Amino acid sequence: MASDTLLEREIHQQPGAITRLLSIESEAVARVAEAIRAARPHFVLIAARGSSDNAAVFGKYALGAFAGLPVALAAPSVTTYYGRMPAVGGALVIGISQSGQGEDICEVVRQAREQGAITLGITNNPDSRLAKTAEHAIFLHAGEERSLAATKTFTAQLTVMAMLAAHLADDPALKDELAQLPDWVAHTLALSAGVPARAERYRYMSHCVTLGRGFNYATAFELALKLKELTYIVATPYSSADFRHGPIAQIEEGFPVLVIAPGGRVLDDMLDLIRDLRQREAELLVISNDPAALELAHTPLPIPAVPEWLSPIIGVIPGQLFALGLTLAKGYDVDHPRSLRKVTSTR
Amino acid sequence: MASDTLLEREIHQQPGAITRLLSIESEAVARVAEAIRAARPHFVLIAARGSSDNAAVFGKYALGAFAGLPVALAAPSVTTYYGRMPAVGGALVIGISQSGQGEDICEVVRQAREQGAITLGITNNPDSRLAKTAEHAIFLHAGEERSLAATKTFTAQLTVMAMLAAHLADDPALKDELAQLPDWVAHTLALSAGVPARAERYRYMSHCVTLGRGFNYATAFELALKLKELTYIVATPYSSADFRHGPIAQIEEGFPVLVIAPGGRVLDDMLDLIRDLRQREAELLVISNDPAALELAHTPLPIPAVPEWLSPIIGVIPGQLFALGLTLAKGYDVDHPRSLRKVTSTR
Repeated sequence: MASDTLLEREIHQQPGAITRLLSIESEAVARVAEAIRAARPHFVLIAARGSSDNAAVFGKYALGAFAGLPVALAAPSVTTYYGRMPAVGGALVIGISQSGQGEDICEVVRQAREQGAITLGITNNPDSRLAKTAEHAIFLHAGEERSLAATKTFTAQLTVMAMLAAHLADDPALKDELAQLPDWVAHTLALSAGVPARAERYRYMSHCVTLGRGFNYATAFELALKLKELTYIVATPYSSADFRHGPIAQIEEGFPVLVIAPGGRVLDDMLDLIRDLRQREAELLVISNDPAALELAHTPLPIPAVPEWLSPIIGVIPGQLFALGLTLAKGYDVDHPRSLRKVTSTR
Repeated sequence: MASDTLLEREIHQQPGAITRLLSIESEAVARVAEAIRAARPHFVLIAARGSSDNAAVFGKYALGAFAGLPVALAAPSVTTYYGRMPAVGGALVIGISQSGQGEDICEVVRQAREQGAITLGITNNPDSRLAKTAEHAIFLHAGEERSLAATKTFTAQLTVMAMLAAHLADDPALKDELAQLPDWVAHTLALSAGVPARAERYRYMSHCVTLGRGFNYATAFELALKLKELTYIVATPYSSADFRHGPIAQIEEGFPVLVIAPGGRVLDDMLDLIRDLRQREAELLVISNDPAALELAHTPLPIPAVPEWLSPIIGVIPGQLFALGLTLAKGYDVDHPRSLRKVTSTR
């Protein structure tokens, strides 16, 4: 099931993109972290949409767990529709946008800077409005992303959030772990070579849920978004905690559930849930590096053993390849999905 | 399609519950607002799960638009799994829990209070752990909620957030509008008498999306949650902005879409989307007080004309009645849905 699509090429460009990002931007991230420490922000506000918003959710966990910073996700429509920008003068305000052209994102950053906040733009486009609007900028160096579904820019955005957390925590162990990321990403791709073909089994899948928790709550959202954008199925993401309370009632024999459950603090909780789902005869696709979790899956999607906090960056990759394979199996256009534009212009 | 269910009774108790809440707790809310003003918090952190989390999302918009306060929704697992409570000493930290017994919610509030934050518990149970853990408390006075799906405690939670926003803004116009809420809620119930019977048409509906924006972003989430909890269908909520960018590609002839689009700042945007969905031959259920929006619906769900910021409190009601009717049409147990417990115990 090899395909000559931009999407597949860009998925495979991820080890190179992350290597580039780590080597080119480490100093810039260190400088930004220094400036943030000096500004002593009370909290962080992140403005983003789509895949970038999922990267923001990862940032919420990484900055919370390693830098003790509370993170709010912006509600840009408060500003654009109701004309009221919340008081963020004492905050760090981050805009994340692959294209750097999202109007509402730039507007939040512009007003925050006017209020005196320390502002940071994270974008793949150094010439973009976001890069010019924010006081500080970190660039993704992912190369132009031509396929409409974001892949390499998403993992690059996660990597920037991870770099920022490691530098703010100023923890050498975290920085050492980050340095190994390109190898882990490459290893993940090698382990996942058969994933697109495996998607054949799901040719007629019309809906699914995706589950994750903690650092991988963001991954569950990104996996669902890729499936919705590319394959038009109804894919609904949940935290395993929220899913157990109510929505689990939907699960009946054969209901497809994609779980991200790598080793770490939340694994025991995820394993309990996987066993429960197995008993309910759900069809289980499991992204994990834990033998017990993979054992319970109809479709195991193995990833290498990595520290939990970095697992979202590699864990999303088998999901990207699964979405690619399912799109091909369903006979849809991989690189030009219906209704997707590269620059989101939202008021 | 009259039913003698706790759920139906509790839905109809909402005008009384809100009347009680406004009259009993107004002074307490005024005092809490005074204390918050004196504490000058840099931002607000809200910890909640399930329906209460949807009330928190409404709070994010109300406190943002009227009090200029940035609101972060807590990620309790950062605290419970990764052992790190973000620094919130300078914040207002609110826990929302119907039962007041959610362990992770109480833990976030406890640690926040230890850090010196001003803390507020919003609960229906004055004897609960949350009421004792938080420095300040506001009670819902909704009466015991016996049906497992939250209805009257949800609208009461929204009303508390609206009261808090009006008192923090100290705007007499907002307070006047609040005073009319019980009448509007009663009027909504009168307008919605035929809604449960209308749900017959959707007996075989297996999935839908729910759409809202701005203040009603929270409503879209609550509508989807009620449908999932009670009818086990796959219901996915979106902001209209995010939906347009990607997921709209799922829509094909007959795909059910429940839109909440009352008059106000976001109406034009919602109307554009409704027209687009109509062209894609979606099956449209529209909660609105705008004749043009209702006109485009297969199932119009009219509500009275109210100020946009209060529309979530009345707009959810036809959705509650629709979920009730669909549950009956599908032959499920209204008051004891599978997998739902009244007290969510989540680490």
